[in-house]
Amino acid sequence: MKPLETLFTISDNNSLMRKYKGKSKTRKFCLCLQSIFPILDWGRYYTIRNLRGDFIAGLTTASLCIPQDIAYAKLANLDPHHALYASFVTPLVYAAMGSSRDIAIGPAAVVSLLLGAMLSHDIRDHKSHEYLRLAFTATFFAGVTQLALGVLRLGFLIDFLSHAAIVGFMSGAAIIISLQQLRGLLGIPHFTKKTDIISGIGSVKNAIVHHEWNLETIIIGTSCLIFLLITKYIGKKHKKLFWVAAIAPMTCVIVSTICVYITRADEKGVSTINHIKGGLNSVSANEIFFRGKYVVRGFRIGAVAGIVALTEAVSIGRTFAAMKHYTLDGNKEMVAMGTMNIVGSLTSCFVATGSFSRSAVNNMAGCETAASNIVLSIVVLLVLTLFTPVFKYTPNAVLSSIIIAATTNLVNINAVIMIWKIDKFDFMACMGAFFGVIFMNLEYALIIAVSISFVKIVFRVTWPKVVVLGKIPGTSIYRNIEQYPKAFQITAMLILRVDSAIYFTNCNFVKDRILRWLRYENEERAECELAEIQYVVVDMSAVSDIDSSGISSFERLYHSLEKLHVQLVLANVGKIVMEKLQESKLTELIGRDKIFLSVAGAVITYGPKREEL
Amino acid sequence: MKPLETLFTISDNNSLMRKYKGKSKTRKFCLCLQSIFPILDWGRYYTIRNLRGDFIAGLTTASLCIPQDIAYAKLANLDPHHALYASFVTPLVYAAMGSSRDIAIGPAAVVSLLLGAMLSHDIRDHKSHEYLRLAFTATFFAGVTQLALGVLRLGFLIDFLSHAAIVGFMSGAAIIISLQQLRGLLGIPHFTKKTDIISGIGSVKNAIVHHEWNLETIIIGTSCLIFLLITKYIGKKHKKLFWVAAIAPMTCVIVSTICVYITRADEKGVSTINHIKGGLNSVSANEIFFRGKYVVRGFRIGAVAGIVALTEAVSIGRTFAAMKHYTLDGNKEMVAMGTMNIVGSLTSCFVATGSFSRSAVNNMAGCETAASNIVLSIVVLLVLTLFTPVFKYTPNAVLSSIIIAATTNLVNINAVIMIWKIDKFDFMACMGAFFGVIFMNLEYALIIAVSISFVKIVFRVTWPKVVVLGKIPGTSIYRNIEQYPKAFQITAMLILRVDSAIYFTNCNFVKDRILRWLRYENEERAECELAEIQYVVVDMSAVSDIDSSGISSFERLYHSLEKLHVQLVLANVGKIVMEKLQESKLTELIGRDKIFLSVAGAVITYGPKREEL
Repeated sequence: MKPLETLFTISDNNSLMRKYKGKSKTRKFCLCLQSIFPILDWGRYYTIRNLRGDFIAGLTTASLCIPQDIAYAKLANLDPHHALYASFVTPLVYAAMGSSRDIAIGPAAVVSLLLGAMLSHDIRDHKSHEYLRLAFTATFFAGVTQLALGVLRLGFLIDFLSHAAIVGFMSGAAIIISLQQLRGLLGIPHFTKKTDIISGIGSVKNAIVHHEWNLETIIIGTSCLIFLLITKYIGKKHKKLFWVAAIAPMTCVIVSTICVYITRADEKGVSTINHIKGGLNSVSANEIFFRGKYVVRGFRIGAVAGIVALTEAVSIGRTFAAMKHYTLDGNKEMVAMGTMNIVGSLTSCFVATGSFSRSAVNNMAGCETAASNIVLSIVVLLVLTLFTPVFKYTPNAVLSSIIIAATTNLVNINAVIMIWKIDKFDFMACMGAFFGVIFMNLEYALIIAVSISFVKIVFRVTWPKVVVLGKIPGTSIYRNIEQYPKAFQITAMLILRVDSAIYFTNCNFVKDRILRWLRYENEERAECELAEIQYVVVDMSAVSDIDSSGISSFERLYHSLEKLHVQLVLANVGKIVMEKLQESKLTELIGRDKIFLSVAGAVITYGPKREEL
Repeated sequence: MKPLETLFTISDNNSLMRKYKGKSKTRKFCLCLQSIFPILDWGRYYTIRNLRGDFIAGLTTASLCIPQDIAYAKLANLDPHHALYASFVTPLVYAAMGSSRDIAIGPAAVVSLLLGAMLSHDIRDHKSHEYLRLAFTATFFAGVTQLALGVLRLGFLIDFLSHAAIVGFMSGAAIIISLQQLRGLLGIPHFTKKTDIISGIGSVKNAIVHHEWNLETIIIGTSCLIFLLITKYIGKKHKKLFWVAAIAPMTCVIVSTICVYITRADEKGVSTINHIKGGLNSVSANEIFFRGKYVVRGFRIGAVAGIVALTEAVSIGRTFAAMKHYTLDGNKEMVAMGTMNIVGSLTSCFVATGSFSRSAVNNMAGCETAASNIVLSIVVLLVLTLFTPVFKYTPNAVLSSIIIAATTNLVNINAVIMIWKIDKFDFMACMGAFFGVIFMNLEYALIIAVSISFVKIVFRVTWPKVVVLGKIPGTSIYRNIEQYPKAFQITAMLILRVDSAIYFTNCNFVKDRILRWLRYENEERAECELAEIQYVVVDMSAVSDIDSSGISSFERLYHSLEKLHVQLVLANVGKIVMEKLQESKLTELIGRDKIFLSVAGAVITYGPKREEL
């Protein structure tokens, strides 16, 4: 059980526990409270200067967040006010508990889509009360999952969704989301509820064939989309003009709402939001399913959505933390996210997380602390209490164009190219997730991507490299002769390096590989009339661990070499492996005089005399 | 897709393909035929001397094999003649196609038990014709699975059942088998068909409570068992007397049969074999299910039994090959085993494999080639055609005692202790398999053991060691300061070694670990009023691979260190990792002057001047 132990040794003893050492009980309690609510810590040093930064950032983020929220609620097949509720309650909780200074909290596109897709798989009628209740249940369990991962310090599980898998998943989801938005953009009345690309394209084709589209809607939608994409481009080119892109969605909403109101386009078939329920969140604790058949389903949906939401938030958090150089405790973040979603589920919200686009705006607008989330929350509160009637004439087409513009960020072709260049297996995982999302569904896509990622590790562990080392002229360094062509081999010696820990999956491969190299090198040397190999030196520097299968295959290797009158020599054996070799008495079989600190040492002892070299 | 490629490069190009180079077509055909049927190769050099060795070995093995066969058939709930058929047909096929010189082929205890347990899970009535047909179907698919693994060169999959898992599985199976034999040994009429220990003990208890046992049977059974265990002990102590143990079962059978015949004990409730169908194998090709509901079940049973059978045979084969120093091509062995089981399934046999006990006897009796299997086969043929009526009075208790004596070998306490010493995770896999067999069933046990083994790999890959290196006085060698307490650290430098390939599962852990070491070391050095660390040197010698997540975490590490005014230096970067660093332009970010061939080189360039050291 070493790994867990080593995981905690340094982190806890030195940073977490040291803080509490020798303090009074009251002080300990205060420190503990501060550790759960970082706001108690940074709040004491909060300045007017901080407030200015946070205020502007919060305001800018809010102007992006409100139209996005209304749009994302549609992805989850829920009424817009639930998303606004989420943007009011969850940022407050996060501001108190979160440790990132840049994340902006609220519903996010991919998580909303995932939630919507999984919910409608179980309950087809989106207007039914059951659907809403299952949504709260899923949100509750998403929070519980996140909290549990944080409390149990299982944050590492998030890393099991590899970077490549996330890139593929997000790109695929962006395409699916955009395709679904064609419904709003073109004003198509009937659209599939499935998320795959085939069904989506089918619906669009069907609508075109039957002329089920609305010209006014198309004009509003496409002009907004073009405007949004242009402002986005400007924001990207000139970092100082990022605010143009940030307020563009709100501008679109206001302009298009006024246009519809003046022209009464809603009477010409342009669908509008019509009604957003105003006022504050209602309590939904009694709506959550705690028994019955929907508990298990709600848990499944919640667990998946919660983990995907965490992946997004943690990855954003890490990026900004590295950029501004502060440390982010992954487990603490999970506790904050979990609590905020649990609170959200009790107050009529659905799953919220840190969103890519808003966090970027928040950061660029100069946020200083998590207090920007409080500002954001207050703005949303004002909208909820005062301005909901304003959205009566807001056309749905605008929301669709906002979603499409927001999701273009998620398709990251450069990242895909880089993944292809770096690692073909990673690329497979990426494509697995991408095509999984596009042609199947989001859950399968995740399973495929995670499976491919793990198969990669098993593959690599099963067939490690065993390379031949040579001496680099003028030094006592031995390196891979393929990598350093100047490195030369030693007379009558074969020096090999095993590039992996030796486990049951690869121990026979490693043994066979060593014997094959021996045979091959002997043949090659015989052709050049060089001396036969008498010593096989195995450089164990990369062998970080060995298991019982590995030990017995080394035993067999020793016997095989013995029959060939070749001596087995080990060099640079690590601590763990050395202990196991001693436990299994293999050191005695091989002989202690055959185990060296370095390859150079082995060559000096058993190699040719200096004049022969 | 590198791993597969590298797997084949050397083995095929140099040994397999080279043989065919520049040969005529006829010659190529002959070579190909020889490669499939090694008998065509070694048969040409066969001498009288070889024959003598093989004849004695075959005869000795047969005397052990015949009583064992009759007993093992009971484990599979089949009639004894099917096992004898298997010992007649399959050794012939193996002799022609196999490449091991020591394996003795026939039904084996664990595989027979596994087959019986899985078959009776699907069909409860052992006497029904369906049961027999499903047994043939399973045998057929066991052969197909083995053949497929060999032809597709997927032999490495066998290694996924780790040594530790096999030890646990075999020990558990031995206990279960022995427990079930109490039925025969005590003469209990009603016994559970389940394989777990609870049901077994329940049946025995029940029989004792209701006095459902037979004194004569107990006397015969226990005296035979004592005799067998004593001879076994003698055989182990004095290697030359191994034949005493080898012929002991046959002696027991003959003596007890005569006793029963003379005393007519069968009329006093001693159950006997009664009837073994004589004559040669009947064709069973038309009995195999090729459609209907039993095809899938037959396939599942066959695949599991086939893989377990292979594991046993390959592990024996490897042991003897290493002992006598000849190479064994795992894939070719699988083709031989697969063919022999397919042929077996067409001729009324059930799954055969290389058995531990018989192969050991075969080897000790001085077998020279696979021809000993032919001798064995001929002896079984004689028994089948001439001597089956002899077994009419053989008591079942003798068979039970033979099985118990044979399976005591499989409980390997020394191996378990060694596994505990070497690797605690391996021990968990071993115990998982053991308790899985004892309390659940054989299939679950396999799944549990394989899962634990893989979780181990993932664990180790997720939390690799990151160790601090120091310079060993008087050398330019840098090693783990925990392992070599004399190694000292360099002023203003922190030298770390990452002991694993860097993948998505561990990249954040590695990054955090490096930063924590930096913080910790800086604190420690500040306490001793030593200079602050300016350079972090990462020894990459054990980092055999890196993926795209790893690259981006290194990028983040670089930025984090930059903020702390600490320079990142890499040493001893391997070929694969170097290529990836270049592809991702990380080499340019870090700076080419920060990448060194060795740690010593980095210290010479950036470390303190010699006089300061």
